[in-house]
Amino acid sequence: MMQTPLTIGSMLEHAEKFFAKKEVISQTHDKLHRLTYAEIGERTRRLMSALGQIGVQKGDRVGTLAWNHHRHLEIYFAAPGMGAVLHTINIRLTPEHIIYIINHAEDQVLLIDEDILPLIEKVRDKLQTVKAFVVMTDQDELPASPLTPLYSYEKLLQSGDPEQPFESDIDENDPAGMCYTSATTGKPKGVVYSHRGIVLHSYALGLADTAAISESDVSMPVVPQFHVNAWGTPFACTWFGSTQVMPGPRFTPKRLAEFIDRFKVTITAGVPTIWLGVLRELEQGDYDTSSLRAVLCGGSAAPKGLIKAFEQKLGVPFAHAYGATETTPLVTYSRLKSYQQDLSEEDRLKERAKQGALVPGLEMKVVGADGEAAWNGEEMGELLLRGPWIASEYYEDDRTANVFHDGWFHTGDVVTVDEEGNIQIVDRTSDLIKSGGEWISSVEIENALMAHEAVFEASVVAIPDAEWQERPIACVVLREGYADKVGKEKLLDFIRPQFAKWWLPDDVLFFDDIPKTSVGKFLKRELRKQVKAHYKVQK
Amino acid sequence: MMQTPLTIGSMLEHAEKFFAKKEVISQTHDKLHRLTYAEIGERTRRLMSALGQIGVQKGDRVGTLAWNHHRHLEIYFAAPGMGAVLHTINIRLTPEHIIYIINHAEDQVLLIDEDILPLIEKVRDKLQTVKAFVVMTDQDELPASPLTPLYSYEKLLQSGDPEQPFESDIDENDPAGMCYTSATTGKPKGVVYSHRGIVLHSYALGLADTAAISESDVSMPVVPQFHVNAWGTPFACTWFGSTQVMPGPRFTPKRLAEFIDRFKVTITAGVPTIWLGVLRELEQGDYDTSSLRAVLCGGSAAPKGLIKAFEQKLGVPFAHAYGATETTPLVTYSRLKSYQQDLSEEDRLKERAKQGALVPGLEMKVVGADGEAAWNGEEMGELLLRGPWIASEYYEDDRTANVFHDGWFHTGDVVTVDEEGNIQIVDRTSDLIKSGGEWISSVEIENALMAHEAVFEASVVAIPDAEWQERPIACVVLREGYADKVGKEKLLDFIRPQFAKWWLPDDVLFFDDIPKTSVGKFLKRELRKQVKAHYKVQK
Repeated sequence: MMQTPLTIGSMLEHAEKFFAKKEVISQTHDKLHRLTYAEIGERTRRLMSALGQIGVQKGDRVGTLAWNHHRHLEIYFAAPGMGAVLHTINIRLTPEHIIYIINHAEDQVLLIDEDILPLIEKVRDKLQTVKAFVVMTDQDELPASPLTPLYSYEKLLQSGDPEQPFESDIDENDPAGMCYTSATTGKPKGVVYSHRGIVLHSYALGLADTAAISESDVSMPVVPQFHVNAWGTPFACTWFGSTQVMPGPRFTPKRLAEFIDRFKVTITAGVPTIWLGVLRELEQGDYDTSSLRAVLCGGSAAPKGLIKAFEQKLGVPFAHAYGATETTPLVTYSRLKSYQQDLSEEDRLKERAKQGALVPGLEMKVVGADGEAAWNGEEMGELLLRGPWIASEYYEDDRTANVFHDGWFHTGDVVTVDEEGNIQIVDRTSDLIKSGGEWISSVEIENALMAHEAVFEASVVAIPDAEWQERPIACVVLREGYADKVGKEKLLDFIRPQFAKWWLPDDVLFFDDIPKTSVGKFLKRELRKQVKAHYKVQK
Repeated sequence: MMQTPLTIGSMLEHAEKFFAKKEVISQTHDKLHRLTYAEIGERTRRLMSALGQIGVQKGDRVGTLAWNHHRHLEIYFAAPGMGAVLHTINIRLTPEHIIYIINHAEDQVLLIDEDILPLIEKVRDKLQTVKAFVVMTDQDELPASPLTPLYSYEKLLQSGDPEQPFESDIDENDPAGMCYTSATTGKPKGVVYSHRGIVLHSYALGLADTAAISESDVSMPVVPQFHVNAWGTPFACTWFGSTQVMPGPRFTPKRLAEFIDRFKVTITAGVPTIWLGVLRELEQGDYDTSSLRAVLCGGSAAPKGLIKAFEQKLGVPFAHAYGATETTPLVTYSRLKSYQQDLSEEDRLKERAKQGALVPGLEMKVVGADGEAAWNGEEMGELLLRGPWIASEYYEDDRTANVFHDGWFHTGDVVTVDEEGNIQIVDRTSDLIKSGGEWISSVEIENALMAHEAVFEASVVAIPDAEWQERPIACVVLREGYADKVGKEKLLDFIRPQFAKWWLPDDVLFFDDIPKTSVGKFLKRELRKQVKAHYKVQK
């Protein structure tokens, strides 16, 4: 067989040729853009050429600080397409962490959305490697800024060669992208994606039994492009010719609901907290969501109530998936087998609430205290992964040894596996509650609480306990209008039938909101602090 | 990213774990078998172990002479799974060619269906490398045979280790399989498939926009397992957990129709001549074909009439694809784009009669006399291909240089490409008819003739002509009951409106059947001889 490498440039080339007329619909600060893949292709070629002119070389890291829009899509292909490395920077990190990762990745150029410029202006003196800044704006005039040299993205494009070829001298194992993941303690850790990993991951997203991304799709990635490449959907959707709808800067649930209706979105992807907000908007407004064939949900476990609301109230199929920054990210996808189609509605929901089965191309192992856990839906263990789109290390980081060893990525996620091979996240190894020598799953209690109609969000954390070592405390945000109607006892009564007595939280605290990470997951570390503080004040 | 290789063993391992309960339904000489993937997995492991015991080593070629059944499926995974090479031998070749390819491939072991034993018994003295023979039979007793040593497949399995691991020391570029393709002149030419090529090709078969092979499918490969790995479907279907229905030895259109009905087949694959026969059976009998979601057709261009009959009379979607032994084989897949859904029925049919657009992962180029052909559906050129599942050579064969050069596989197929990137086969470079300095496409005239209700098959060949260099002659097989009703003039009148005057065949000859290759394609070389002989006799 021919030794042709799997490269990201060839994916866009395929779209330029076979999907030339299909569109990317992109919301920026100032307007809604519609560009065909023929145009995206030409602009990407110009961008490669222009970045070369301002000094970007093969292997250089090109940083982005940007929302989901077409320019961000273009740099997704331009950086790896010219043999450089796309480094998407999480704009929700602290300035200290942003400085750290730009310096650690040794970014040569930063492409920045205009509303994010102030963030970089403040830290510019600390950046050790950046040689040029590019502002991604619709405006003709450059904004006043102390950043220098500062280029306009659109002006750069004008100077670029519209027929610039993709770099041909690429080994498929060469780095194509990188993304830093926040650690529970310490500095963020960098993950490097290869051309090979991203191409194979894109195949996995196109399979009939996973996301089945197709030319006939209208895909709206809600998960940020600065977070694990928006789960790789922009790569796969471009390759397979889907229409893409990019929701742009600082989108609201309202904009998402409107775009679903207006552009007849068929597939969208994001974390559970996003869907809680969108659900509220959809229930309040008058939107046509009939085009949706799948709402991809991952990042953390989606509560059954959320899945039920989307599937039963809105008639929108909800697809649960699982992955991590270290896994590009798709690892499992929830799907009923052909012989499970006759399950009762309740059993179907139970299956759909699991994270699903391993996608073809990866290997997994679940290791508990006594070796590999049996696939019986009961035995717990840590999920270990291996495969061509699983990271093998953190980029120049001593913490690599903690999680990448013996040939496996140790996810830190505690799971069960059922007979069908579907995993269910029980907890983070670090979030499990150890009570009286036994484990309590905070996630299971959260899901049970969120099934109550009054509960908008629920997070369960451990507090130290002299007798039991740790005990669970439930932190709940109620839906509007329920504040006076539902208290601690009602909620505990609601979940009591589902759990052993010692699993029940010792207390239920009510919050206006629950602290979240920059990617919308519950920030349990912070929540634990608040809960502890609360009890100290009470004393 | 981790450096984990793409291997065929890991595909079956995935099925053993995640699709343990799903079934392979297999017709052998004596009975219908039903085995789960858990059982197929165990039997494959036993087979690897047993083959090792009789001397098969890493890199050895293991030949098969067999129909489509579960034992053939097991060796599909056992040979590459142990690091050996699966060599599927076309049982329809002449004894001379079979001797040649077994010796050329240096097969160490041959696995043979019992009804094919006589073929090998006759040539056994000519086989230079074969050290053992295995008969794939349901019988407890070995058949009387001069072949020695001769083993029973099932007895071998009993002696094998049910937990034999797949070979772990495999480079994904290692050979996994091989298949010889008949040349127009001379000996067959060998193509070697790598693990990488077959795994990537399987991903391509699972994509939503190609064959979309899924766990929910019931797949019946009609294309022989000795012909380009039954188009790779057994690999993909196993990996993705489809139920597989193997139609076994010497199947008839009647058995195929019955199996579609009885096992609720959703997808099946074969050459046009097969579907002509099945169509006749379906029209005569009372079969429920409502389970079918796709009939994959490739190998040669399917006439529009055939597509129309399946789609409109039977309501069965017909999917046209294109490939070759050298391409593993999937290259293009016919599919309407989302914005073409409103085409008229006639225009849809016209689109579906094309071979379709390139599947993601490959590159193509169409080169005519004046450089690359424009994508306008008019300009003709030879199709050139490149990609990770395109062969780079013929196995130890000097003819490599004729078709693999400048980094491309030169297919010898003349095509046009339309605006959407859909190719349409115009002809073989060697089958084009050169008349008065212009090209006439034999395939287009054949398709036009086959659209007539009286025509069962039509093949158009050139005869030498003093004035025009070459002139087309149509060779037609009529459907039953039309012999007295339709003659030369009626058929020429029927196609006259579609062609320039000089494209019309000079004559129409009627045949009882048209000679075909061992894989069911029209054998034009032989037909040309018969046509020439006919005119000589006439003189």
